[in-house]
Amino acid sequence: METRNLRRRRQEYGLLEANQDVEPSKHKPPPSMPILPTIIFLMSMFIFIIVVLGYATTEKTAINDLISRRLMENIDVDNIKNYLRELTKEPHVAGTDENRRVAEAIARIWTENGLEGVHFNSYNVLLNYPVWEKPNTLKIHKGFETFYQTNGTEPMILPDEQGDPFAGIQWLAWSPPGQVTGDIVFCNEARDSDFQTLKELEINVTGKIALIRYGTGFRGDKVKRAQHEGATAVLLYSDPAEVAAEGIDEDKVYPHTAWMPHEGVQRGSIIHGMFGDPLTPVLPSKPGIYRSRDIEQAKRNGILPSIPALPISYTTAFEIMKRMNGPLAPKDWQGGLKLDYRLGHGLHNDAKVTLEVHSIYETKTINNVLGYIKGAEEPDRFVILGNHYDAWVYGSLDPNSGTAILTEIANSFTKTMKETSWRPARTIFFAAWDAEEYSLIGSTEFVEEYLQMLQQRAVTYINMDCIHDNKTLTLATTPSLHDVVIQAAKRIPNPSKEEQQQGRPTLYDTWYHYYPDEKYKHRPWMKIPSGNSDQAPFQNFAGIPVIDFAFKNNSPIDYPLYHSMYETPFLNEHLVDWDNFAIHLATGRLWIELARSFSESEILPINHLALAEAIIDDYIPPVQQAVNSIKPFDQSAEAAIVQLNDQVHHVQQMSLTFKETILEFTAKFSKAKNRFERRSINDRIMAVDRCFINPVGMLGAPQSRHVLFSVSDKDSYSSRVMAAVFDTDAKISARQISIVHYSILCATNAVKEFF
Amino acid sequence: METRNLRRRRQEYGLLEANQDVEPSKHKPPPSMPILPTIIFLMSMFIFIIVVLGYATTEKTAINDLISRRLMENIDVDNIKNYLRELTKEPHVAGTDENRRVAEAIARIWTENGLEGVHFNSYNVLLNYPVWEKPNTLKIHKGFETFYQTNGTEPMILPDEQGDPFAGIQWLAWSPPGQVTGDIVFCNEARDSDFQTLKELEINVTGKIALIRYGTGFRGDKVKRAQHEGATAVLLYSDPAEVAAEGIDEDKVYPHTAWMPHEGVQRGSIIHGMFGDPLTPVLPSKPGIYRSRDIEQAKRNGILPSIPALPISYTTAFEIMKRMNGPLAPKDWQGGLKLDYRLGHGLHNDAKVTLEVHSIYETKTINNVLGYIKGAEEPDRFVILGNHYDAWVYGSLDPNSGTAILTEIANSFTKTMKETSWRPARTIFFAAWDAEEYSLIGSTEFVEEYLQMLQQRAVTYINMDCIHDNKTLTLATTPSLHDVVIQAAKRIPNPSKEEQQQGRPTLYDTWYHYYPDEKYKHRPWMKIPSGNSDQAPFQNFAGIPVIDFAFKNNSPIDYPLYHSMYETPFLNEHLVDWDNFAIHLATGRLWIELARSFSESEILPINHLALAEAIIDDYIPPVQQAVNSIKPFDQSAEAAIVQLNDQVHHVQQMSLTFKETILEFTAKFSKAKNRFERRSINDRIMAVDRCFINPVGMLGAPQSRHVLFSVSDKDSYSSRVMAAVFDTDAKISARQISIVHYSILCATNAVKEFF
Repeated sequence: METRNLRRRRQEYGLLEANQDVEPSKHKPPPSMPILPTIIFLMSMFIFIIVVLGYATTEKTAINDLISRRLMENIDVDNIKNYLRELTKEPHVAGTDENRRVAEAIARIWTENGLEGVHFNSYNVLLNYPVWEKPNTLKIHKGFETFYQTNGTEPMILPDEQGDPFAGIQWLAWSPPGQVTGDIVFCNEARDSDFQTLKELEINVTGKIALIRYGTGFRGDKVKRAQHEGATAVLLYSDPAEVAAEGIDEDKVYPHTAWMPHEGVQRGSIIHGMFGDPLTPVLPSKPGIYRSRDIEQAKRNGILPSIPALPISYTTAFEIMKRMNGPLAPKDWQGGLKLDYRLGHGLHNDAKVTLEVHSIYETKTINNVLGYIKGAEEPDRFVILGNHYDAWVYGSLDPNSGTAILTEIANSFTKTMKETSWRPARTIFFAAWDAEEYSLIGSTEFVEEYLQMLQQRAVTYINMDCIHDNKTLTLATTPSLHDVVIQAAKRIPNPSKEEQQQGRPTLYDTWYHYYPDEKYKHRPWMKIPSGNSDQAPFQNFAGIPVIDFAFKNNSPIDYPLYHSMYETPFLNEHLVDWDNFAIHLATGRLWIELARSFSESEILPINHLALAEAIIDDYIPPVQQAVNSIKPFDQSAEAAIVQLNDQVHHVQQMSLTFKETILEFTAKFSKAKNRFERRSINDRIMAVDRCFINPVGMLGAPQSRHVLFSVSDKDSYSSRVMAAVFDTDAKISARQISIVHYSILCATNAVKEFF
Repeated sequence: METRNLRRRRQEYGLLEANQDVEPSKHKPPPSMPILPTIIFLMSMFIFIIVVLGYATTEKTAINDLISRRLMENIDVDNIKNYLRELTKEPHVAGTDENRRVAEAIARIWTENGLEGVHFNSYNVLLNYPVWEKPNTLKIHKGFETFYQTNGTEPMILPDEQGDPFAGIQWLAWSPPGQVTGDIVFCNEARDSDFQTLKELEINVTGKIALIRYGTGFRGDKVKRAQHEGATAVLLYSDPAEVAAEGIDEDKVYPHTAWMPHEGVQRGSIIHGMFGDPLTPVLPSKPGIYRSRDIEQAKRNGILPSIPALPISYTTAFEIMKRMNGPLAPKDWQGGLKLDYRLGHGLHNDAKVTLEVHSIYETKTINNVLGYIKGAEEPDRFVILGNHYDAWVYGSLDPNSGTAILTEIANSFTKTMKETSWRPARTIFFAAWDAEEYSLIGSTEFVEEYLQMLQQRAVTYINMDCIHDNKTLTLATTPSLHDVVIQAAKRIPNPSKEEQQQGRPTLYDTWYHYYPDEKYKHRPWMKIPSGNSDQAPFQNFAGIPVIDFAFKNNSPIDYPLYHSMYETPFLNEHLVDWDNFAIHLATGRLWIELARSFSESEILPINHLALAEAIIDDYIPPVQQAVNSIKPFDQSAEAAIVQLNDQVHHVQQMSLTFKETILEFTAKFSKAKNRFERRSINDRIMAVDRCFINPVGMLGAPQSRHVLFSVSDKDSYSSRVMAAVFDTDAKISARQISIVHYSILCATNAVKEFF
């Protein structure tokens, strides 16, 4: 039975031909690349000697190639499996003893694996917890007559992996405590447009409990909007259309498939509009540092929610919805529950819903774990690889699939170094972030503390939060890194034999197959990194070029068991990556190849010509269109439009100058006579990206400092370019256009030789 | 007669023994150092060869020594004199054709002198002018009966040098046009304490014309305060106590001495609280860049004055004061006019004062002139030497004494390069700024445009606005540069023979003699650079360590003819620096030696241990004292004091850590194996100073970004350390203490090897 469902799931993901009948092979050796360790070792030693004697580029390329292959070979899937099991023994929410034990395990293994300077980087930050002994509950009742009641927990399904008594608690981080009784309004996904629809249908949310479908978008934005509409509490539920698309029969959900079981819920943070410790924006939460606000102020500022919120299962949602009064919800609001979705408010027989949320705010110590491999040539230039390790429960996909892979990458590096006497040219940093789940807190506090050192020394930050699913690579980065990531992805063998058989031999091929760029046909579509993981502060606060990648399905919805207690190693091994962790391996290989590229390239592989072209072709035209669409209502408005057109014209001119200057600059790369001159070139390459930081922050959001890529206040997961230019009441901000102009001017100057 | 007065003036400055009788020698050769050009040349060539072959440090020191001496020898005073005459032929206010001609002359001479890449760096900025054909006038009258009237000009005294028909116009830049009739109140120097005194004496300024003595402090602050008190107009006058201290008889003032003649006035800018173009704060005034305010908004923001203001001579002040009613002014408000100073208001016989100011605001192109000598080793590290060239009239002291010297320094560098085949290791930039007089506009727009390039590449900025007087060197810099400036000053022969005879053979000795540091006995007192000249944006906006130096008298009052039309070459040659420009020469030698030190030192001569010690010993204790002096008025105030004490404690701890870290870092300097490793060390040294920039600006002043050294809003000429910590209504700002803390944390991290 289990096997059949596994098969069905694999078919669903296109990893099995429908008529193929293969048993899952649990411990097959990894799909090995043709390897001849001894010969390669001798060859590489020989070539090293040549290089030491100063022989030139072709030898260097050959070595790079050998090192690349050796690094990929040296990743051991059994290690990844063992690390994963070690890191996911207990639920480990940030700030708990359990999570500290995970941090200690990471530090111990990293040290054993040969990383240098492994240490905790700690901050004291505000967190929020459920009261573990008192689960948060919901009941449907009329006075003392109860029609339905939850016990507030997900049931344990695999006792070996899910044995912790508090693992199942259903909760949302940052919810204030509170008991709310009231009528329900169904708000669909709680987008602005959803509330608009409710208004048009004359359904008032004020004073009601908002029932919201997870769907797409960040849950913190949903709660914020519901609160803004006057809701007294929020229920967030996972609709079967997203999490149990094959039906909710027992044999169609976990543990038989990777679909969500009946009582499963998605946990998560419902903070709004900021990263890091909510009480110390911009500054690191170190002892003696001023807290610029307290919890009540953070609530008043709309950063922490003021109304209780609870995640509920589709089973509970069904119990509520089947009793709901009111008009039918619009057609496109209907979901996967076998009933008519109604808007409310009110339940049959005047029943009410009461939710009871217990929670506490606590200041806790969080610990990022850091370690590095010191660069042989440029120890003060850093390539940073990062992943968070805190989890809502066991976290075997999110995030510890990533942590286990990162840890094994460290191992591969040091093993390769021992075997070859090679050492990376630049320093490679390994970072395991804490409290990402609450609002990227560990990475944000770190970036705030080390802002200047990062801006001076960090070449790139490469984030891999976790493996989400098994269909394809997805990757977000900025235009200037398109080339390097495409080159790297082309070097990684496809983890799916089926895909290989389809004529797609590399990771790149499947990626391109599922995500072709509609405008630029020659490459896969890559979005700009958004606020969804730890790359955000590096990009948006420090102006470091970042990469964020993952393995995923090809749907906008996250994997069904996301943030549930069922993310334990069984899921990775049997329901997501059953071909002996081929996907974990491929992901690690991409990560290590990217790290190697940034560490070893004599001239940094950051192509600002692509950025210049993106600005000219993709970023400025929408501004011009927006200006064109303004309707002048009087003379002063006309004057303003003339001025806006003049500004846009100058930005365009500036962008063309930027492109020209980059072309001239690039032509000089090959003329650099020695590493001293290459350093100077690389300094200038690094300086370009820093120019897109506006240090005062965009539109009063002091942490959103990236002029092009900062996250929109309205959608924390989006990656709309130049959000601040458009995000104003006046539609287009003249000031923001000048800030864009200034950034491009700065970037142009950055690569020039002299003033 | 002239001779006797010259003698008296020189005695006054201590440059002549009272019983000594020496005629001024107009064209004696410069006080030559013992020089044997041929031998030195051969020796230096020989040693160069040795160095090329890789021989070590002692040879390098010897070469540096020879180059240093050669550079100093190669400064030619006759060139300085010629340049000075060429640059001061016409009055050259910023934005005028005359000033453009000066810029063109500079660019031409710099190019002839061998500078590379000489070009204009231009901006379109708001300026303000008098109406040249309509002088600003003042009359004392009763109705149509006029008792006294000015013609609004300084009379020409030396026709050969002062022949321009509009040179004499008396005006203050940024005054709005306007005609005001009213009663006078004497406000002394218009300090806060002066207005406090007036209040205590029940003298109301509202609706009156404020008569203000220049005295000390920035005139823009004076006008701002008078306007704030409700004055309808401002008259700024120069008191004989400051500008004619030997009396106002004809033979005791210019041209017989350097004291101010009867109708002389001090011009100047009365902008308040900002640098640069008033309409584009923070951003460079380039085409297409958004103007964030207009003139009326700048007035409402208190940046541009809303009331007319006029500078008047002591003769005019006498005419007003002798008619004044009202109580006697306090004893310490009495000045050098031979009458009783009264407060007003009202004149005898109900006479009124009417002033009539004509002025226009115009957007003009200003042109900084830039050129450089490309560094041989590190062309992308810049030592910047700067001086402005725009003047209120002819500007032979302020600023073109400096421009002429800077131009000859360029000459000395290129001459030395030709003679020796030596070339500076780092790039030396020469900058002649425009529109400094209006509010440091040229340098500020430049720093705004090239902010990032400066922060990445500028090692230091060394400003010499002008020679003010002839008594001693004065120098403002930050603690980290104390060592290097002292070493340089010790190498420069004393330009005064009298001082040499007093046993003070070097520039340093006289400086130390007049300005011993009262706390640190072993060194001269050096104040922190303030807002008085073009170093301000480099320090306060970009965090570049700066030096600002000058030759001066040893009084807090500026030289008598400051900003008058009598600043023409005669003044330099006959009344200030009559010993064949010995002072111009010595000043140039110091400048060139400082430039050489920063260009040639393998490890940058920036000593952050001195900064750490200043923070610990001098900057933090006043904060602790201020906290100690707060009286708790209730429980929440007590809690706030506990928190402040905790913060101060942590800042102290952080400062000690900073010091320790700097000590460890410094110990590594000698271990650097090659220039690549030294570059990495120097990068970290440079990073330290950038840490003291708070990019959001202090207390709502977006241009005042230096955490330690930003200028106080209340006194633009002051250099109070950490003004923002104290400048708050709450007396001590908890947030600002944390910003100081963060800067020291950043500086500590800046020199560390890894996170």
